[in-house]
Formats: sequence, C-alpha cells, structure tokens
Amino acid sequence: MSEAYSALEQRFARMSAVGGAIAILGWDHATMMPEGSAEVRARQLSTLSVIRHEIMTAPDMADLLAAAEANVGELNFWQSANLREMRHAWTHASAVPGDLVEQLSMTASRCEMAWRQARADNDFATLAPLLEELIKLVRRSGEARSDAFGVSIYDALIDQYDPGGRQAHIDPLFAKLRTLLPELLAQVLERQAAAPPVVKLTGPFPVAQQDKLARSLMTCLGFDFNRGRLDTSHHPFSGGVPEDSRITTRYDEDDFTPGLMAVIHETGHSQYERSLPADWLEQPVGRARGMTLHESQSLLYEMQAARSPEFINYLAWLVGEHFCGDKRQYNAVNLQRIYHKVSPGLIRVDADEVTYPLHIILRYRLERQLIAGTLKVVDLPAAWRFGMQELLGIIPEKDSDGCMQDIHWPSGAFGYFPSYTLGALAAAQIFTAARGNDTTIMPAIAKGDFAPLNDWLRTNIHSSPSRYTTSQIIERATGEPLGVTAFESHLRARYLSD
Amino acid sequence: MSEAYSALEQRFARMSAVGGAIAILGWDHATMMPEGSAEVRARQLSTLSVIRHEIMTAPDMADLLAAAEANVGELNFWQSANLREMRHAWTHASAVPGDLVEQLSMTASRCEMAWRQARADNDFATLAPLLEELIKLVRRSGEARSDAFGVSIYDALIDQYDPGGRQAHIDPLFAKLRTLLPELLAQVLERQAAAPPVVKLTGPFPVAQQDKLARSLMTCLGFDFNRGRLDTSHHPFSGGVPEDSRITTRYDEDDFTPGLMAVIHETGHSQYERSLPADWLEQPVGRARGMTLHESQSLLYEMQAARSPEFINYLAWLVGEHFCGDKRQYNAVNLQRIYHKVSPGLIRVDADEVTYPLHIILRYRLERQLIAGTLKVVDLPAAWRFGMQELLGIIPEKDSDGCMQDIHWPSGAFGYFPSYTLGALAAAQIFTAARGNDTTIMPAIAKGDFAPLNDWLRTNIHSSPSRYTTSQIIERATGEPLGVTAFESHLRARYLSD
Repeated sequence: MSEAYSALEQRFARMSAVGGAIAILGWDHATMMPEGSAEVRARQLSTLSVIRHEIMTAPDMADLLAAAEANVGELNFWQSANLREMRHAWTHASAVPGDLVEQLSMTASRCEMAWRQARADNDFATLAPLLEELIKLVRRSGEARSDAFGVSIYDALIDQYDPGGRQAHIDPLFAKLRTLLPELLAQVLERQAAAPPVVKLTGPFPVAQQDKLARSLMTCLGFDFNRGRLDTSHHPFSGGVPEDSRITTRYDEDDFTPGLMAVIHETGHSQYERSLPADWLEQPVGRARGMTLHESQSLLYEMQAARSPEFINYLAWLVGEHFCGDKRQYNAVNLQRIYHKVSPGLIRVDADEVTYPLHIILRYRLERQLIAGTLKVVDLPAAWRFGMQELLGIIPEKDSDGCMQDIHWPSGAFGYFPSYTLGALAAAQIFTAARGNDTTIMPAIAKGDFAPLNDWLRTNIHSSPSRYTTSQIIERATGEPLGVTAFESHLRARYLSD
Repeated sequence: MSEAYSALEQRFARMSAVGGAIAILGWDHATMMPEGSAEVRARQLSTLSVIRHEIMTAPDMADLLAAAEANVGELNFWQSANLREMRHAWTHASAVPGDLVEQLSMTASRCEMAWRQARADNDFATLAPLLEELIKLVRRSGEARSDAFGVSIYDALIDQYDPGGRQAHIDPLFAKLRTLLPELLAQVLERQAAAPPVVKLTGPFPVAQQDKLARSLMTCLGFDFNRGRLDTSHHPFSGGVPEDSRITTRYDEDDFTPGLMAVIHETGHSQYERSLPADWLEQPVGRARGMTLHESQSLLYEMQAARSPEFINYLAWLVGEHFCGDKRQYNAVNLQRIYHKVSPGLIRVDADEVTYPLHIILRYRLERQLIAGTLKVVDLPAAWRFGMQELLGIIPEKDSDGCMQDIHWPSGAFGYFPSYTLGALAAAQIFTAARGNDTTIMPAIAKGDFAPLNDWLRTNIHSSPSRYTTSQIIERATGEPLGVTAFESHLRARYLSD
C-alpha cells in the first residue's frame, strides 16, 4: 500500500468526520434548533462545507491520486475500488471552479428562500427570474462536470446523485412505464370504484400513542435505538451518520397512517446506512451507492414489505394494541384498503405507487428541457399543466400545486428526480429476488419480524456499498439488469388480482 | 485597517464557526445522542478540534499578528482590543508543542475514563498512576505557557480559564475567606439549629410539571426561547453558542428544588452569552471574559437574585400554581428555609454558599502543590482528609466522596477551581452595586421581573466582553477591585440578621 494511498485514506476519513458533523448539525436544524438561530447555524454549516471542499481540492490532491493510481497493483480489491471512488468524488469537486461553486450555492439559497414565499403566495412570476439564473449556473456546473467525465451535461448532473446513472439507461425504462401505467391505472381505478369503501378513521390519535406505536414498529424492522433516534420534523427524513442514525416523521392526530408509513420508509433508508460494512464507513467505497439504491431500500420497506397483505395483517394487530376506539377502522381489511388506495392527484409526495412514476416522468421530461434550454422558465407552468393532463388526466389550478410543489429545482437539484422511480423499480425487483431466494422472509414478515429480510439485504445489497456500481449490485442480487417486469408484476398482483 | 488584521478577523470567524459546531455537537452528546454512537462522535469532535487548532497555528499566523500589530494605530478601540485577544489566544495555542497537546488530550481522555470507574469502585489506587502521568503533562504544558507569557506555571494554567487571573490576586482573597468563614459558619449553624425545621417536601412532583415551571421561570428571567432550548442531561450545563443557547437541568420527582435552582444558575450563564454585543460574536474580543465573570453571572442569578427573600416570595406563588398537594410545603417561609439551608457536607456541588468557598480553598491549596510536585499523588487522599477536617470539620470515609468527587483534575483541568469562588465574590459585589445604582431592580424581582437587572448587567458587564480585563470590568461596574466585603455583608445579612 503506497504512502500516497494512505495519505488519501486519512484525508477522506477527515472529510467523513466533517461530513458527519454537518449531518448531525443538519438534523439538529430540522428537529431541535430554535427558529431564531438559523443565521448562526448557516454560518457553521457553510464553514464546515468550505473546509471539507478545501480538503478535497487541496493543491496536492491530483498528485496524490496519480501516485496512488500508479501503484494500484499493490492495493486489494476494496482499496482499489476505494481509490476509484476517491477519483470520482475528487473529479466532481474539482471540475467546477470555486467561484461557480460559491455563486451556485448562494443563488440556490436565495432561490430556495424565494420559492418558499412564492409557493405560499402562488406567485410563479416572482420566482421565475431567480430560477432562470439558477438554471444557468446549474447548466454551467453540468458543463464543467461533463467535460471532466466525458458524458453529456444531463448525465453529469445525474451522476452527482446517482454515480453511473445515465439517461440512456433511464429512457427505455421510463418509456415502458409511460406506455404501461396509464392503462393499468385505469383498470385499478375501475376495480377500486367497484370495491367497498374505506371505513374513515376517527381520531384523535394522540401523538404519544402514535410515537409509541412507531417505536414498536421500528423495533420489528430491526432499528437499533442504541445507535439512532426517532424525532419529528416538518418533513420526514433520514439523517445523521451510519453509526448514529437520526430519522424523523410527523404526526397528525386525525390520521396515524401517513406518519406511520413515513417511519417505515425512513427506517428503510436508515437500515441501509446502518448495515454498511463497519471497516469502510469513513471511506468513499464504504458509502451507500447512490440515490437509486437508497430509495430502493426505503421503498422496499414501505411499498413492498410493509404494504404486503402479510405485514398489514400484523400491523392491524399492532395498531389495535395502541389505540382505543372502534377497532373496525384498524382491522386488516380496512388498513389494506387505506394503504392500497390508488388515486391520481396533483401532489407527488402524496402519490400512491401506481401514479408516482407518472409524476417523475413529467419532471424528468421537463428538467432535461430546462437544462438543455429548449424549455424557457417562463413557459414552465404551461408545460407542467400540459404534462399533467397528458400523464395523469388532471390539471392543477395553482402553480403552487403544480410546478412549484417541489423543493428540488429551486434548491438547484436537477437530475435527482429519476432516482425515485428507478428506486421503485429496483425495490420490486430486489424484493422479488429476496422472497424467491429465501422462503422464510414472508412468513417472518407476517409475524412482524424483518430479521430474515434484513439478513438477505445485508448480504446481497448492503455489504457491497460503493464497491460495485448500482447496475452491478442490482444484477448480482437479482440475476438481471434493472427492468420494469418485477414492478409491473407487483402492481398487477397487488391491485388487479383477487 | 490593515490587510493582515482583516485576514486575522476572517480566520478567527472561521474558528468561531468551527467552535460553534463543536459546542452544538457537545450539547447533542450530552442530551440527545444514543449511547452506542459515542465513538463516531468522538471522531467528529476531535477532527473539528484539530482543524480549529490547525487554523490557529497555521505557519503564517505569527507574521500576520506581527504585521497587524505594526499597524495597530489604524485600528479602533474594539479592533485593537481584539488584536490583543487574538495574540493572547494564539500564544496559548502555539506555546505548547503539537505532540504534547496530543499526548495531553489522549492521557486526559484515558484518565477521565479511568476516573469514572475508579470513583464508582472507590478505588483511588488504580487512578493514581494515570493521574500522576497526567499531572506531569499538565505541568509541562504549564511550563510552556509560563515561558510564553512570562508568568508562573500555575498562573499560566489559571490563565487558560480566566485570562489575567493570578495567584497573587487570589491568595489575599482566599486568606480572608479562610479566616472569616469557619467562625461565620458556626454562628449560622447555631442560629439555624434554633430555628423551626424545614417542612419536608412530599412529592411526587411530575417531570412534566417541573418542566413547565422551569420554562415559566426562565421566561421571568428573560430567556429567549426563540434562540435557545431547555433540555435534560446527567449534569446541568449551559452550552451551545450565544445565538443558540442550550441549557440543561435534571429533574428529581421527589424534590423539585435542586432542578429548579440549576435552571436559574444555567440561565445566568446563558444570559451573559446572549447579551454579548452582536457585532463581535465571532471575534475573541466579543467572547465572554472568562470563568470568574461567567460564574459571577450564574451565581448572581442563583445565589443573589433568586434566593433573595423578594424573589422567593414570588417563586412560592409560581410553584404553588404548578403543583397540587399540601401548599404549606411551598409557602415562602418554607421555601426560603430550604434554599437558605446551610450544612457542611462532603460534596462540593451540593454545598451551600457559606461552605462552598472552603471546598474551593482546599482544592486550590492541593492543586498548587500537585503542580509544584510538593504533594505526591499517592498522598492526595490523606491530604484531602486532613484539609476537610481542618476547613469543614468533616472527613470523607471514601475517596469517592473525597478527592475523587470532581471531574476537573482527572480531565486535566488545573487552575479552574478558584474561579468558582472568585465568581461568588464578584456576584455579591456586582449585585450590591446593581441594587445600589438602580432602585427599581429589587421591586421588579419581587414581581418576578428580571428586566431591570438584565438591563443593568447588559450595560455594565455584558457589553464589554473581552474588551477589558476581568479586574477592569469589575472595577468599572462596582467602583472597586474585587474583594470579600460585599460577599461577607451578603452572608451576614442573609444568614445572621433578623
């Protein structure tokens, strides 16, 4: 092992510690921090980000990487994969000139703040000029990354969130979904219209009881409270570091079902981080592979395992143990109707799993055009309405329920959206493989025990982290490249069979 | 303003942001972090400490300081005081060689861990060799600082916690207390023995109610919950940063009185930080002056204002509003008996304000001898017992209630203890001046309103931060140097007059 490689490991460990501090401070910002302290926190976070960036882009990094690569033969498989990931991370960080990084970060901050107000006021006109400025800068950052990696601008943007993710992989998958889903949706809606209606939940469901239920559930899922916490925040998220997992949810006293499902989703993210190999946590090769696989793990929990009839049956019992009131509303049949309800809506984050990919296809289409400059920002609301009509058959009356609903674009995240749907496809394919490989998984889930599933995921997905590419990990675990077949079969089995 | 000075301001602002991150992560460690995450947190904290130290000891810092000092004439009063404080902080950081800093930090960690176990086991023998090793390293660090500042080794150690603090100032004050207190204590005990006994509190006092009471009280004291929080931890402390104050207490369901007083004490610390001038928060000149003044502010709240008969009367009403049960136990007379109870005991942190300085005098005496090498570590338990007998007339049966009770020495903090008692003297002197200068302070406190007191403190103490020395601040605020007169008068008035 060369001195250069050792020096690189030390620097990446240092960046990892700084990144961990940023993650905990970010969690605190969303859960604990009093509102009036936002300014000082922003200074702390930006200082740590700059320090991390300076370590990454130190003048001698290029030489260290070259020297380590010249002696790659001395490295074992993990180390050489680590070196490849170091090069990848460094290329992203060093591709974009410092002044552009700063301009982008400041404009994104301003744009995100403006978006919060504009969305509240349903006033796209005031957001538009800032968003246009931001897109120009994102495009320039994409150009710089595109030159460094020798891929297209949009691919270079995707690559930040999902290393190795490419439009050429996404297009055929999304094209199949585009063909498949509208017809499938129509059938599901027809079938659900003919079924008995949901028994409406009658709360209140006290927050303390919901919290207790959530913690029981997390214990079923294998969450380790000795290395993690559950708290509440405005939007649920999974944060912290692998050894100190901080997940959040939000509780609605009138309806426990969304808060509970958010807990399951975020626990899925957390379990991925928690079962990464301990020896490599501080190095790039030991990090979770990217947003597609990350989302596949949360959706595997939320959509595949926890919404299975087997688990809903168990959940109905668990819910009944935690709340008083009319038990009929929590029985398995009704709970399944609630959790399997399909209904085209305007808002992505509220969408069911059948319509969700259509929301993503719309964003994928529009963001490529925005980055390419073939769609003007001023025309975005109209293009959005047109797309919603085409894909989902509904049109938002307000831009706040349309093209202003998501934080991603106003915060500068272009190329992120596809990973949600790629993750859903991967979740179905991985879960199908897991159930096929290990027949104890479903009987255990039926008893509220996720241990066999977790073992399978640890062995087949989590143990590789960034040692292989996303495509390799999926193919090794499921025996085939990512496709739509498992997802389609899953939807047909859940929503169209008896 | 020279370029060098500007560059220094930027670097100190960066250190301040890193220090703020460390403070929040430290708070999280004590309040929120799950136990199993200690290791990764230690890595995050030590990485940030090393980064801060590297910024401070960067190779060009000496030149920057010299260049700025050469042009000090261009600076205004705040800036030149800031430059002086920069030089002071840099001298401390650069005086001690890097390998000694590291050795000291590692040995202190190991010693502190050993202390936790040794205290639990009442086993001084296993702690002794580690403590001896640590003291050697502390002495070497003191020697290095002593050379850099041209003061004695012990003065150089004090100076880390209380800049400008010197044995020559402390000795005469402590000598007076040593003469005064035992006799005064005997009189107080005799008097209290003749008074009616305390009505014993009969709980339980539910934590939720205690917490509500604590928050009401903090509001009276002027705590801004939009820039701060109250939580619980094993030991109460005041942490975070001036713009994001994180204080803690602990609740005992059988007795609300200590937890409540801890809240008042920590709020005193917090108010000092919170009312530092906003423009200078990121610079050394804008930081709180040192531990003597800091402790004076917490003790001014806890011992002077909140234990005044005027406030206890208000507090009795507030307590009665929060708890059911026999109201006689919360009436002002009984509450005052509880909060004015004097009783020599073995444990410093449980001591009343009459006996507390005797605990400090013992530690002050012993730690100087330990650093000078005239007291061997192996003889510490016997010396402790001898001193306790001489000063307080009681002898601990176990070293865990004796020389192993405090975390300070096993964590490497020598020269810290005196500030507790200097703070108590300063609190009495400052509160006497405040009440004399502004006659609206006590009538307001009698109604639970600390605003006039806070205004006076802001103007006379908090607005100067590190612009003046501790001695100058006390003299400017009270018209005379720090002495024991106000403290003695305070004790006589509270405990020996009718």
